[in-house]
Amino acid sequence: MDKLILIGEKAKKASYLMSNVSSITKDNALEAIANALTKNEAEILKANEIDLQNARAKGISGALLDRLTLSKERILSIAQGVLQIKSLPDPIGEVISMWKRPNNLTIGQKRVPLGVIGIIYEARPNVTVDAAALCLKAGNAVVLRGGSEAIHSNTRIVEIMQMAVAEAGLPEESIQLIEDTSRETAVEMMKLNKYIDVLIPRGGAGLIQTVVKNSTVPVIETGVGNCHIYVDGECDQQMAEKIVINAKTSRPGVCNAAETLLVDRKIAQQFLPKVLNSLQKLNVEIRGCEEVQKIFSDTIPALEEDWYREYLDYIIAVKVVSDIDEAINHIHQYGTKHSEAIVTTSYDKAQKFLQQVDAAAVYVNASTRFTDGFEFGFGAEIGISTQKLHARGPMGLKELTSIKYIIYGDGQVR
Amino acid sequence: MDKLILIGEKAKKASYLMSNVSSITKDNALEAIANALTKNEAEILKANEIDLQNARAKGISGALLDRLTLSKERILSIAQGVLQIKSLPDPIGEVISMWKRPNNLTIGQKRVPLGVIGIIYEARPNVTVDAAALCLKAGNAVVLRGGSEAIHSNTRIVEIMQMAVAEAGLPEESIQLIEDTSRETAVEMMKLNKYIDVLIPRGGAGLIQTVVKNSTVPVIETGVGNCHIYVDGECDQQMAEKIVINAKTSRPGVCNAAETLLVDRKIAQQFLPKVLNSLQKLNVEIRGCEEVQKIFSDTIPALEEDWYREYLDYIIAVKVVSDIDEAINHIHQYGTKHSEAIVTTSYDKAQKFLQQVDAAAVYVNASTRFTDGFEFGFGAEIGISTQKLHARGPMGLKELTSIKYIIYGDGQVR
Repeated sequence: MDKLILIGEKAKKASYLMSNVSSITKDNALEAIANALTKNEAEILKANEIDLQNARAKGISGALLDRLTLSKERILSIAQGVLQIKSLPDPIGEVISMWKRPNNLTIGQKRVPLGVIGIIYEARPNVTVDAAALCLKAGNAVVLRGGSEAIHSNTRIVEIMQMAVAEAGLPEESIQLIEDTSRETAVEMMKLNKYIDVLIPRGGAGLIQTVVKNSTVPVIETGVGNCHIYVDGECDQQMAEKIVINAKTSRPGVCNAAETLLVDRKIAQQFLPKVLNSLQKLNVEIRGCEEVQKIFSDTIPALEEDWYREYLDYIIAVKVVSDIDEAINHIHQYGTKHSEAIVTTSYDKAQKFLQQVDAAAVYVNASTRFTDGFEFGFGAEIGISTQKLHARGPMGLKELTSIKYIIYGDGQVR
Repeated sequence: MDKLILIGEKAKKASYLMSNVSSITKDNALEAIANALTKNEAEILKANEIDLQNARAKGISGALLDRLTLSKERILSIAQGVLQIKSLPDPIGEVISMWKRPNNLTIGQKRVPLGVIGIIYEARPNVTVDAAALCLKAGNAVVLRGGSEAIHSNTRIVEIMQMAVAEAGLPEESIQLIEDTSRETAVEMMKLNKYIDVLIPRGGAGLIQTVVKNSTVPVIETGVGNCHIYVDGECDQQMAEKIVINAKTSRPGVCNAAETLLVDRKIAQQFLPKVLNSLQKLNVEIRGCEEVQKIFSDTIPALEEDWYREYLDYIIAVKVVSDIDEAINHIHQYGTKHSEAIVTTSYDKAQKFLQQVDAAAVYVNASTRFTDGFEFGFGAEIGISTQKLHARGPMGLKELTSIKYIIYGDGQVR
């Protein structure tokens, strides 16, 4: 039998068991995972070293190599993340509502696991543990397909996790890794509708688009953020400057970082020189529209494509707009519906922006950097959804669940 | 410019307006639609007559022709359906929860429209109105793509609805029909991720599978129901017979009708002759496993494929099982996760069935025929979701919405 189908069948079978285990058993399994990871850190580091050697031989360096790298400290922090997930309340089993119909049927809407969750991700071995732990806590079986660069680390980590969950009384097939990292196998995985209930890609825009294009399994699209800050003509300019600098420079490589600054013409002459100067001092490259170029000489002319870019870098696109309507239209045309912010002292404009901007998270007078499961108080995050179906914005444990209707009758027919 | 992209752009633009209009305006538009349909019934019937003539010329008859057929009474009933949707509460704008973070950020989760909903359906002109009215009430723009057989009826109906909504002050592009009913255009529609937020197919299994396979736009899979009734050894056999007969024969052509009867071996000898005799009197063909064949002579041997079939007809597959576990395993192997019922007097087995069966609606002692938006009390229904993402089971207005986070700050940075 096809190897992937075998994995799918095992996962589906495990998911039925997983949906019925107690919170205590799941928590014991998570604790067992955390302990096993630290206990076996030498083995994990050995496997990771093989991946690192192969990566260096392929010329991989910089941020990519850093993401692939494990250390004693990183393994400890990964294990602590598992214990943090353990400490969260179990989302499963909650009856969200229950009502009685005129014919005396009692209908309840109950939170249940999604079933089998597929995760496709890049060369970050921490995702292997993180995703598995979140799926397990929400009662799901998980099929992991990580990047080829991390295959030795991932294989060892998954073996360790499987032994740990088995000791705690859960099926080891509740966590499985696809060891064949070929593109063909990934595409085959995306068509496993019979076994996989949801596919969540975690990684760059290229990976996500490949999954969206090829998958017949329902997908939760995550991550791409072309986020804007609109600085209104009526605002506290000091606050605006602080927010722009934070949103752009506190961590430029993440999806909730700002990429474009829109400034109301009424204050452009006054506000732009200050903020652009501060940004430049922080090594941010300025790409601006013609008006910006006139106001701030050290501006690179922005091309049409700049308004679409998610730089994930020390670069910002800057545009002067006539009013809030032009700002909102610009956001709708070029944005990715991730996180958008207005800085204003006007009640009307704050309300208008909150109401009209179509994005997962819309801010008044705060940095877009807060779009994050931990910052929102969810205690965990599997990613940030930029689609509107099922989940939008930061996804915590609840977003890894579905519902079913349970109906109590006493002989009703229609 | 490509015609479909133009439709998509107009729909997206209209959706931004739609998400901001008041409930009163939407309700006025729905009332205008209902009035316009009855006022223009002669024109609609004339267009429908062309479709009917073409259909007859193509040799279409029976149930298909009946579904295509409009009449004065049917138009009135369609218009009344619109007024019924009008009378439901507006789901949009509800702030589901709002909380404050330690840094004083206030985060609210607000119900918003999905945006642009695409509906792909077959030759049922009533769906044109029904789907448009539901989408409108939930603040969405809709792009309709109906079957070629109903094109004249659909074109006229949509024109009438567009005039009505425009009079009420809504953009007429909030309801659009794709007049080109070619397969190529349908496939192109399924890739319009930039403009269409969700695609809902309504129709037979073939249509739904085509959409699931070809669409890169997120899909809500609806409808296919291979529903089971498991009659437990401990049960009220009279109740069981009543439920089986209702689930199979009250309307065999719909997705919540039962297709397979599973009977506990302990009562098979006693229960099966009675119930199968009653079913046969109602013209139901019996296809059974070997044990059933021995108990009830007039049984056609069931083939493996029979357990997978959604007959939508006066046929039932019947199997004797050893216990509830075999029943649940059978349901998981062959079922479509739609509606499943147990008939039992045992508390433990009722609880076990509710807990373990993985389906949108799980019943104790009631007919599967209740899986329906109206029967559940939602006041409307756009379809029954058999997937686990976003919506599961009967979908009402709430399932045509998404959420967004609105965040009130006073200068917070991270």
